[in-house]
Amino acid sequence: MSLNHKDLLGLQFLDKKELQIILDSVQPFKTLFTRSVKKAPTLLGKTVVTLFYEPSTRTRTSFEIAAKRLSADIVNITVQASSVVKGESLIDTGKTLEAMNADYIIIRHSMAGAPDILARNLDASVINAGDGFHEHPTQGLLDLYTMYEKKKSFEGLKVLLVGDILHSRVAKSNIWALNKMGAKVAVAGPPTLIPPRIEELGVKVFYNLDEAIKEADVINILRIQLERQKENLFPSVHEYVELYQLTKDRLAKAKKEVLIMHPGPMNRGIEISSAVADSPNAVINEQVTNGIAVRMAVLYLLKPKVKKNVSSN
Amino acid sequence: MSLNHKDLLGLQFLDKKELQIILDSVQPFKTLFTRSVKKAPTLLGKTVVTLFYEPSTRTRTSFEIAAKRLSADIVNITVQASSVVKGESLIDTGKTLEAMNADYIIIRHSMAGAPDILARNLDASVINAGDGFHEHPTQGLLDLYTMYEKKKSFEGLKVLLVGDILHSRVAKSNIWALNKMGAKVAVAGPPTLIPPRIEELGVKVFYNLDEAIKEADVINILRIQLERQKENLFPSVHEYVELYQLTKDRLAKAKKEVLIMHPGPMNRGIEISSAVADSPNAVINEQVTNGIAVRMAVLYLLKPKVKKNVSSN
Amino acid sequence: MSLNHKDLLGLQFLDKKELQIILDSVQPFKTLFTRSVKKAPTLLGKTVVTLFYEPSTRTRTSFEIAAKRLSADIVNITVQASSVVKGESLIDTGKTLEAMNADYIIIRHSMAGAPDILARNLDASVINAGDGFHEHPTQGLLDLYTMYEKKKSFEGLKVLLVGDILHSRVAKSNIWALNKMGAKVAVAGPPTLIPPRIEELGVKVFYNLDEAIKEADVINILRIQLERQKENLFPSVHEYVELYQLTKDRLAKAKKEVLIMHPGPMNRGIEISSAVADSPNAVINEQVTNGIAVRMAVLYLLKPKVKKNVSSN
Repeated sequence: MSLNHKDLLGLQFLDKKELQIILDSVQPFKTLFTRSVKKAPTLLGKTVVTLFYEPSTRTRTSFEIAAKRLSADIVNITVQASSVVKGESLIDTGKTLEAMNADYIIIRHSMAGAPDILARNLDASVINAGDGFHEHPTQGLLDLYTMYEKKKSFEGLKVLLVGDILHSRVAKSNIWALNKMGAKVAVAGPPTLIPPRIEELGVKVFYNLDEAIKEADVINILRIQLERQKENLFPSVHEYVELYQLTKDRLAKAKKEVLIMHPGPMNRGIEISSAVADSPNAVINEQVTNGIAVRMAVLYLLKPKVKKNVSSN
Repeated sequence: MSLNHKDLLGLQFLDKKELQIILDSVQPFKTLFTRSVKKAPTLLGKTVVTLFYEPSTRTRTSFEIAAKRLSADIVNITVQASSVVKGESLIDTGKTLEAMNADYIIIRHSMAGAPDILARNLDASVINAGDGFHEHPTQGLLDLYTMYEKKKSFEGLKVLLVGDILHSRVAKSNIWALNKMGAKVAVAGPPTLIPPRIEELGVKVFYNLDEAIKEADVINILRIQLERQKENLFPSVHEYVELYQLTKDRLAKAKKEVLIMHPGPMNRGIEISSAVADSPNAVINEQVTNGIAVRMAVLYLLKPKVKKNVSSN
Repeated sequence: MSLNHKDLLGLQFLDKKELQIILDSVQPFKTLFTRSVKKAPTLLGKTVVTLFYEPSTRTRTSFEIAAKRLSADIVNITVQASSVVKGESLIDTGKTLEAMNADYIIIRHSMAGAPDILARNLDASVINAGDGFHEHPTQGLLDLYTMYEKKKSFEGLKVLLVGDILHSRVAKSNIWALNKMGAKVAVAGPPTLIPPRIEELGVKVFYNLDEAIKEADVINILRIQLERQKENLFPSVHEYVELYQLTKDRLAKAKKEVLIMHPGPMNRGIEISSAVADSPNAVINEQVTNGIAVRMAVLYLLKPKVKKNVSSN
């Protein structure tokens, strides 16, 4: 089984069959974690580079562990503002890494589309680890896998995304993929944080969380980025908590078997109450475990082009 | 041989027999360093995470090399003030690392007790790499091992700690462990840097270094943290040097075979003179070598719980 | 084949035969990059430390990948200004790393001569990864190897270095080595950026780039460090571009087979035009590939002393 793709840029660009191939490839990697030696030789002698223009310990660590468990050599590059000032273009940085025979480049960038620019210019496989407000496809895939593992089927599955939909690349990746898999996606949040015309993507919009909650099979709670409040894009934190925090009381109105998900890191007491985060419905830590298995599957399935940059003259 | 412990939180919590088990396990790892291939497969396929909330290149590097020589996969996480602002709780961070199937978490934290909080909430083995003014158990163990290697027995061994006892976690770990092993511990330093009622721990207190020095078999000189001077906790640096620097002249008053130790990094010309640091009595670089062997022994002896966080449903 | 040297401090200290030994050792490592498993067991169980007192993602990454492809254990240490304040001397830092049984220490330092100080005090092999305005020998070697691979011989080869010769360690390493190999070196740049009496090294000086270009077989364009402009050491950026940028028009006046080189990262539009950087004459990305192979060859050829710092008493 493999994907006929060099890169993973977004779930928008995969069809249902391809998404299913990825989901079907995860379990063997997850099983590996129960063994005494959590390692497979899949990427032995391959070079994986993480190239992060925004800091993210959580995502970088997950990819780093995934690559190490596949026996790859991995190099972490964190680009500080100061280094960007050095003035090298993104493409030149990519070309340099490719000249170092990097097989996989995992990029996070504040600019939507940056991974795509790299991918079009390089033979190396490019994996988008989050680009601007655009996509975060491996997060989307780990969310999907977690739902699939627990609910067995996407057909008619009702998934509710709660919070800042507008700025969330996680939300976008969820919406693109869940739609294709046959799930029914709804969003709930303050009007200022819901993108206009999102209904055109087949998404149901709620401004009232209590109403939205009732029919959901899965509630995926997005992280509130408190710095957004300065932009006056949502009411005071106090009002947000009142209207949109998932509390034990609100959870009581949901289906008994509802899954509670969160991409982390959680703001306990803001978008989610501690009681809900620690409830049996929550699968937040399993999402983290699945994240590593999903990333291993993606590294396994992608097809870097055969390198042509070593000339022997 | 193994320890019946999941975690290493402090030497306070180990008994004499357990300390002896650790000391007896170090030599084979140290012998490994004389081989051409300095590597053992002990932790192949295991995941070790260093989680440092305070920077410490020296301790982190020592653990990193120890884990790599045991063939583990290791991931370094340095938590900057900025990331802590993101607001995730320590337990949630720990749970996330455990969900990533980390087998060992090596934590340094400015808050005494932080490693204990992690240890009680996780199945992973937690190793304290320094917590506040509390303990730094692997430093204590490497100090002990160095004394044991050179002096063969702790029975009646007279160990003098010099300097800032109050703020030193190294001093605390030394005192707890040396007492248990049958050594006689004394401290010397300015009254403001000696904890009140330390005599109750069976420690002899000297304010006069020249007097203290005479009977010591081992002198362990603590690093003076110059930033403390702002808190007016010790006299001027000049006065400190006059009264408490270990100089060649003072060393001449000590026993001929006295061992001079220092946890590093040294402030030459402050707490120790260069002549003493480079004298044949000094075993400061051997402490560093032993530090890696001791950390390998600890990683080898601790017993992480069998993981239960991978559900197959 | 091996070098009878423990350290690589500068190309100034190697003779023609030794330089040729290094050049002849590169190809097998470069061939490795075309294989599916880009890894050799050469340094298995060896410990390589990068010790960078100045940030340089590019050079550090190249060494890191080189060491990993040789199966070494590698530890990266970046010394921030804040840590230097801790006051440990360079020699003590080196002794500490050696006590950790580091076999190779790769150092970058803003002070010319720092690697030499380490090398004279340690048994470990020391590799200079750039010291002040002095040398950057592995960059010089990768430049040489790239010329050698393409032009087959140095005898009478005309190499032109363009730009800030005064502050460039790359220029110095190029000049020392190319002279020894029988090439003819010229430099071109503003008078303020050409070291006085450089002719005594057998170097031809041009202040007019258009004149210099005509006879060159290789043009190695140095990176302009824009922060130098504050020191008024070169005319305005605009003037620099007018007089010294390598443009398509200027390239048209050069030999048809001229090689265009640049150590990177490039300032496109400053010292080099985009058209030239992407022209078929440019071998800038091949320099990067060769950089890893050259560093592998150097790690392979150097001879660390057998360690004596593990005492068994």
